[in-house]
Amino acid sequence: MKSTKHIAQLTLDCVIFGFHHKKLKLILSKLKLAEEIYALPGGFILQEEDIEDAAKRILFERTSIQDVYLEEFGTFGRVNRMSDEEFQLFSGLAKELYPDVEPPVNEENKKMRIISIGYYALVDFEKVIPKKIDLDESVGWYDINELPKLIFDHQEMVQKGLKVLQENLDKKLLFNNLLPETFTLKDIQELYETVYGKAFPANNFQKKMLDLQILERLDKKFTGAKSKAPYLYRLKSNK
Amino acid sequence: MKSTKHIAQLTLDCVIFGFHHKKLKLILSKLKLAEEIYALPGGFILQEEDIEDAAKRILFERTSIQDVYLEEFGTFGRVNRMSDEEFQLFSGLAKELYPDVEPPVNEENKKMRIISIGYYALVDFEKVIPKKIDLDESVGWYDINELPKLIFDHQEMVQKGLKVLQENLDKKLLFNNLLPETFTLKDIQELYETVYGKAFPANNFQKKMLDLQILERLDKKFTGAKSKAPYLYRLKSNK
Repeated sequence: MKSTKHIAQLTLDCVIFGFHHKKLKLILSKLKLAEEIYALPGGFILQEEDIEDAAKRILFERTSIQDVYLEEFGTFGRVNRMSDEEFQLFSGLAKELYPDVEPPVNEENKKMRIISIGYYALVDFEKVIPKKIDLDESVGWYDINELPKLIFDHQEMVQKGLKVLQENLDKKLLFNNLLPETFTLKDIQELYETVYGKAFPANNFQKKMLDLQILERLDKKFTGAKSKAPYLYRLKSNK
Repeated sequence: MKSTKHIAQLTLDCVIFGFHHKKLKLILSKLKLAEEIYALPGGFILQEEDIEDAAKRILFERTSIQDVYLEEFGTFGRVNRMSDEEFQLFSGLAKELYPDVEPPVNEENKKMRIISIGYYALVDFEKVIPKKIDLDESVGWYDINELPKLIFDHQEMVQKGLKVLQENLDKKLLFNNLLPETFTLKDIQELYETVYGKAFPANNFQKKMLDLQILERLDKKFTGAKSKAPYLYRLKSNK
């Protein structure tokens, strides 16, 4: 096996979360295969690339945006995380598109397992238009509650990514990464309710948010009905 | 490069925590090198081994115990996490001891980077006698606040492992994994104070612990002075 420019048995897959119309969505690629199979955006890690930089590169390839919240949520390394059938399908496609990139096989031409590092990214849905790469028949946003058939253990990766997002959304106050620059208190609440899949009493929730003293109040949101318009907020800058 | 039985560029390192005499300790190997350099217990991941099983195997090799709390805390993948000098030292030693295990080098005989997955384990200090493997001149317990010089980025791994332990000790109520089967409320408090590096008011802390209703009260601890002896507790079984 000749030496290649990427690490043979290690990839990185991204769960790219966006929030839109009270739905938590993520970016999926529909692979160029006869069967309808979807995959998380991912790829090999280059030999001369920090893992964190690989995550940024893959994210940029699919979203054209930089400087977004990005965090590792675990390694996926079961020996049988890729079935032989799916491995054949996927590596056949990859070989066709990227003849230089050899799939990991040993001397007996048997597949060698691939381990994947999971990252999640939080992006402003309004700012991101998902971008195709060669592997993709199409690429787009999908509601986390209505996912199509995912390849390998990507369904498991999504669930773990969601779990870690739930743990961190409150602890690390990540909500602003999923909202536009300015938002109403109701926007934050709807985001929390969507991510946690449950309702929060409005008064308590909004008081708690204001008590954190991290929000800067701006003008009222223009809704046409001026008197009842809610205030817009943005995150105080950390000067 | 001939195919080997382990994944070429991926290892796993364990931060094995124990608690003893108000100190948080971890197991380190003093490597068989002229220089005095220490390392976390670790090793390659075998081709036919789930990552979780690799962690259990490595833990068993160094502690002879099984069924302990074990959790991944992150991947360490900076391109330069191993200096050339340390890589030479370590792979020289490894080659001497394990001639079958080839260090990862490319066709030009240049070192190829290794990425490591970090796990932390929580063990009952009283039950574990650290065990040497071929690489070790000695192996033993070291106070986390007085660590010797560690190889590669192992110092960084320890700090990240500690941070994740701090986050999880309370959230996941892990204290019993670091204590003997029976313990006093003061033992728990001392463990918390050591892990978080700060004092907790005794009344509040002990009331909070009892309010969780997860502890079963046993007899008083035998101390000689019967009247003031504290009660022993153990975790209620989850039947």
